[in-house]
Amino acid sequence: MNRQEQKLQTRQRIVDAAFSLLDEDKSLSAMSLREVAREAGIAPTSFYRHFGDINELGLTLVDEAGLALRQLMRQARQRIEAGGGVIDISVDTFMEFITANKNVFRLLLREHTGTSAAFRAAVVREIQHFIEELTDYVILQLKLPRNIATMQAEAMVKLVFSAGAEALDSDDIARRDIAASVKLQLRFVQYGAVKYASR
Amino acid sequence: MNRQEQKLQTRQRIVDAAFSLLDEDKSLSAMSLREVAREAGIAPTSFYRHFGDINELGLTLVDEAGLALRQLMRQARQRIEAGGGVIDISVDTFMEFITANKNVFRLLLREHTGTSAAFRAAVVREIQHFIEELTDYVILQLKLPRNIATMQAEAMVKLVFSAGAEALDSDDIARRDIAASVKLQLRFVQYGAVKYASR
Repeated sequence: MNRQEQKLQTRQRIVDAAFSLLDEDKSLSAMSLREVAREAGIAPTSFYRHFGDINELGLTLVDEAGLALRQLMRQARQRIEAGGGVIDISVDTFMEFITANKNVFRLLLREHTGTSAAFRAAVVREIQHFIEELTDYVILQLKLPRNIATMQAEAMVKLVFSAGAEALDSDDIARRDIAASVKLQLRFVQYGAVKYASR
Repeated sequence: MNRQEQKLQTRQRIVDAAFSLLDEDKSLSAMSLREVAREAGIAPTSFYRHFGDINELGLTLVDEAGLALRQLMRQARQRIEAGGGVIDISVDTFMEFITANKNVFRLLLREHTGTSAAFRAAVVREIQHFIEELTDYVILQLKLPRNIATMQAEAMVKLVFSAGAEALDSDDIARRDIAASVKLQLRFVQYGAVKYASR
């Protein structure tokens, strides 16, 4: 492993350490550089070889969370192509994702309404990417005009995120109920959008 | 004014002071008792005559925010009875409310996904009340079965809250766009729920 690879690996270790610290009681703004360095097993001074400051790390976490979301959507698409209902598979894939990556999703939810304007803007941008990808998919699948498809995709993402927020604090049984509810709500939105488009 | 009235008035002053401190950069958990006392113009020690600790004040703020939400819904209903579309009037009333009471709404949004389990639970309870009132209204207006009306009301509240979160950081023009989008999305949900119920 050359020096560049080593540097990237340490950087990734810092990112992973920060995600692991973001549990239900700890927000990004309450996280200290010293704490992250300790968790990553590096000296606090080495931190600056990778990030300008703790805020730059925060923005990187938001970017990574957004990337994880888009990978999630691609995973759902592959499963759908293998056969199955779009809404059911998408919600199930999403619920699996947030169960396995609670802190990634918590970061997005919390910073979306958090006290840092920079983090809020970064989260909005990531959610926007997610909505745009879903819009393209809706146009392809349902042949809706773009303006209606955009509204439909935005509503769906908002409902799925709200359901995800509830699911974070829930046990397996409650999570199944939440998944069933949001699937029905997504159907309402889809029926409604199709009906609206056909006026 | 007797002693009891005076006590209630001071209590209200503490609540108002706390709300005024909850701006876009300051969360409930970052607020200190000393700071609230200063803003309310009372000695820090007097605080304890009204609240056991800062967390009890926090839960009171969540209760008051919930109450404000329910009053908002009643105001919207009165306006609807005076004539006008349910969705348009409800969204407009909501947008007026959050523009006039940014910090009340910010509190609900932020603590809904915040780091305190007690505050999260309190916010969920208030939103639940709001959904139940809307469910009763949907049953009355659209004659839908309760299970479908509940799903519809929950989806609508989630969409309106998400739109409200966006509107907090927006100027007047952007806020009008957000209001127009969420009105359309609520129509999708309503059309869809009615269609689903008539299967």
